[in-house]
Amino acid sequence: MSLWKNLHGRLRFTNRLVASTARFYSKPSDVKAVKSVSQEIASKQKLYLTDPVSPGSIFFLPNGTKIFNKLIQFMKMQLQQTQFGYEEVITPLIFRKSLWEQSGHWDNYKEDMFRVEGQDISKETYGLKPMNCPGHCVMFRKFDHSYNELPLRYTDFSPLHRNEASGGLSGLTRLRNFHQDDGHIFCSKDQIDSEILGCLQLVDLCYGRIFEFNENTDQSYYINLSTRPKDHYIGDIQVWDHAESVLRNILEKSGKKWELNEGDGAFYGPKLDIMVPDNAGKVHQVATIQLDFQLPERFDLKFKNKDNKYERPIMIHRAIFGSVERFLSLLIDHYKGKWPFWLNPYQAMIIPVNTKMEGQTEACLRLKEMLRGEINHESSENLKPVPLNSFHFDVDVDARPEPVGYRIKDAISKHYSYLIMVGDEEVKTKTYSIRSRDNRKLTRLTSEEIFEKFQKLESEYK
Amino acid sequence: MSLWKNLHGRLRFTNRLVASTARFYSKPSDVKAVKSVSQEIASKQKLYLTDPVSPGSIFFLPNGTKIFNKLIQFMKMQLQQTQFGYEEVITPLIFRKSLWEQSGHWDNYKEDMFRVEGQDISKETYGLKPMNCPGHCVMFRKFDHSYNELPLRYTDFSPLHRNEASGGLSGLTRLRNFHQDDGHIFCSKDQIDSEILGCLQLVDLCYGRIFEFNENTDQSYYINLSTRPKDHYIGDIQVWDHAESVLRNILEKSGKKWELNEGDGAFYGPKLDIMVPDNAGKVHQVATIQLDFQLPERFDLKFKNKDNKYERPIMIHRAIFGSVERFLSLLIDHYKGKWPFWLNPYQAMIIPVNTKMEGQTEACLRLKEMLRGEINHESSENLKPVPLNSFHFDVDVDARPEPVGYRIKDAISKHYSYLIMVGDEEVKTKTYSIRSRDNRKLTRLTSEEIFEKFQKLESEYK
Repeated sequence: MSLWKNLHGRLRFTNRLVASTARFYSKPSDVKAVKSVSQEIASKQKLYLTDPVSPGSIFFLPNGTKIFNKLIQFMKMQLQQTQFGYEEVITPLIFRKSLWEQSGHWDNYKEDMFRVEGQDISKETYGLKPMNCPGHCVMFRKFDHSYNELPLRYTDFSPLHRNEASGGLSGLTRLRNFHQDDGHIFCSKDQIDSEILGCLQLVDLCYGRIFEFNENTDQSYYINLSTRPKDHYIGDIQVWDHAESVLRNILEKSGKKWELNEGDGAFYGPKLDIMVPDNAGKVHQVATIQLDFQLPERFDLKFKNKDNKYERPIMIHRAIFGSVERFLSLLIDHYKGKWPFWLNPYQAMIIPVNTKMEGQTEACLRLKEMLRGEINHESSENLKPVPLNSFHFDVDVDARPEPVGYRIKDAISKHYSYLIMVGDEEVKTKTYSIRSRDNRKLTRLTSEEIFEKFQKLESEYK
Repeated sequence: MSLWKNLHGRLRFTNRLVASTARFYSKPSDVKAVKSVSQEIASKQKLYLTDPVSPGSIFFLPNGTKIFNKLIQFMKMQLQQTQFGYEEVITPLIFRKSLWEQSGHWDNYKEDMFRVEGQDISKETYGLKPMNCPGHCVMFRKFDHSYNELPLRYTDFSPLHRNEASGGLSGLTRLRNFHQDDGHIFCSKDQIDSEILGCLQLVDLCYGRIFEFNENTDQSYYINLSTRPKDHYIGDIQVWDHAESVLRNILEKSGKKWELNEGDGAFYGPKLDIMVPDNAGKVHQVATIQLDFQLPERFDLKFKNKDNKYERPIMIHRAIFGSVERFLSLLIDHYKGKWPFWLNPYQAMIIPVNTKMEGQTEACLRLKEMLRGEINHESSENLKPVPLNSFHFDVDVDARPEPVGYRIKDAISKHYSYLIMVGDEEVKTKTYSIRSRDNRKLTRLTSEEIFEKFQKLESEYK
């Protein structure tokens, strides 16, 4: 019991890390400074807002929702069964107290959880989920599993709730309601190696390649290996040693930057935390990969091995973004509002050079319609559906009666990725002058070529 | 107060309808019969499961999640800003009691709501949202609005919770935790006409064209127009009359089947309910379009009109699927497990004619990989991201050492949309024999032609 009591502290600490930000690495004053720049961008670009009616929850405005959805789309594309081998599931948000008692949360994590109660006669008590693992265990144990079904990888993008103290709430980084790109891998002992490797490949793809927190930058990510706590741990020491040596071997072979964080593992297993410095040099914990020998015990999970005998699977908790909201705040800091094309709610501004020339503005509107992928319906009775997976770019026209130089400057200050200029020559030749936000060089392209260019950028997350 | 009390009953009734099924139209015995067929399909196809740890909530298994996500994707494609003009938002799930008091829910809907409480010292009380409207009102009033920003259309796919009595819980049709393709339109009085028309166009696209509940079938949808209640209503009688005549005119012009449901409108405005009969002839209320003159008052919503004076907007609550879970249950009944290609978790089965011929099985596996859109990575260090919006088909290979006739029969019984046969001739010519589930006619296509065929089917929701 005293062991459990002691573990309680660790469990809270570990779980908090997943949702929390860099409070262990920085002084409050730094946090405030960074926060205000990010919040200024968020406000200017209308990304999200908060309101006292729901402290610690985010209202994502249309622009913020676009970015949020694109991040999720990117991750789902990579995780899917035919790629990184995950199967997406959707699980409930409230569970009876009994589940949280079985998982250990009710005893050890209660104060961080919201209690839910029916207001009818039954007054049944539920817990609003702070994490997805117990729900995934319930799903796993519903079926008989054979060794050849493993590894089984569930992913889940459910909203989660943790009752953070109101004084600790801050922007997007510390919330009561947040989302994770959560996932749990159920595997056998000899699959740990390749599963961890798969998780690290995803981390590399995400942080190293797509979001460019890579070695060529000041914001290069690195990995913390946290090993068995000195006193308070659960499970066989040989399993720990094996797991730690697996993790260490992978890290050594990888050639990646990593640090040993001795004795700082979770009580249920060692873990890898991915650390990213922000523009101010402050380090944030983002992705996490945790080995767990504990929940499979508590939920009596099992599979039939090759000898037709029941065996306990290992569970790996992993999140690549971590909290999507927190990852988003890191991106706001990283890009300072100058979003890459695929994430940008301001993808292109079309500018008629001379708004008095009617043909120019008309050509701009036609081009906008085309780049937005608007459907031309023959009649209102015979609507065509918008095709699945089709591309639709966020393109605007600025035909205000202002000097063209002013409108160009304005579009650049709003961080539109591309500017498309339409003058008489462009109207005549049906090729349009396009330049990027950061480069004055103009190129002449047809509308189809622009669409293709944009489609390539978005497909490739650029 | 007695008016409010009386309205309470109506409010509950109205709100329940959105989440509920056809209990008003059928005997319990019918419900049970239909339910068991659908549940058999759901179980055979591993779509979802339930568990006593969360009564009234669904655990969507990977196959069910695929269908669920495709439905949402379809709807998001249509709703987006450049098409039907909606802006997606993501809003909190728990709100302080004060919000629910302002909206009227705490007084009038309390027993159907879950109360949420922090378990720390603060013990603050929240309500877990049963609907999105109050949250959208909070967002709307955060900004100054001008007439030229209207209509403003928010859409939101948040999970919702309503504390249905445990005896009333049933399959996917009556749940405590469900999702809506919810939306709210804020518009001026003179925009009601075109907004309702837009909603009906969406209904037509969805029910008439994509899911084929149309006039050529026994399951043709029709519309109920519910008008001002005799006694208990709020607002100006002229506004009511105008709104009703707008609705009636639209219905008359549309040539659609509709019925008058006199005096059965919500207390806050008249509404249109879209009714769909299932295979057993039982009628379900699915989509709903409700005019609301009430919430804008309670939240003091306003916009500046052309005369630079503040005016109250009208709110339209609309959902096209209604409860996505309930719509899904209707689709299970509608298709009886024989999903159209785009929704099918079993899209194609590739069958080597003679599994002893090694070349055949190998060709099958290569074809599978290609149709699944798997990425060929040059090396594990140099992973390529899976492109955004790319297509990946759910294709399997059955190379079990069973007679080919048996394997064909088995794939058909599992409702695979297509069967692809690979014999020696196919291996040699690299063209594959493909047939649909319902037609024995074989066609020979290259792998690229099959991919294109599948892509076209999925893009067009077929």
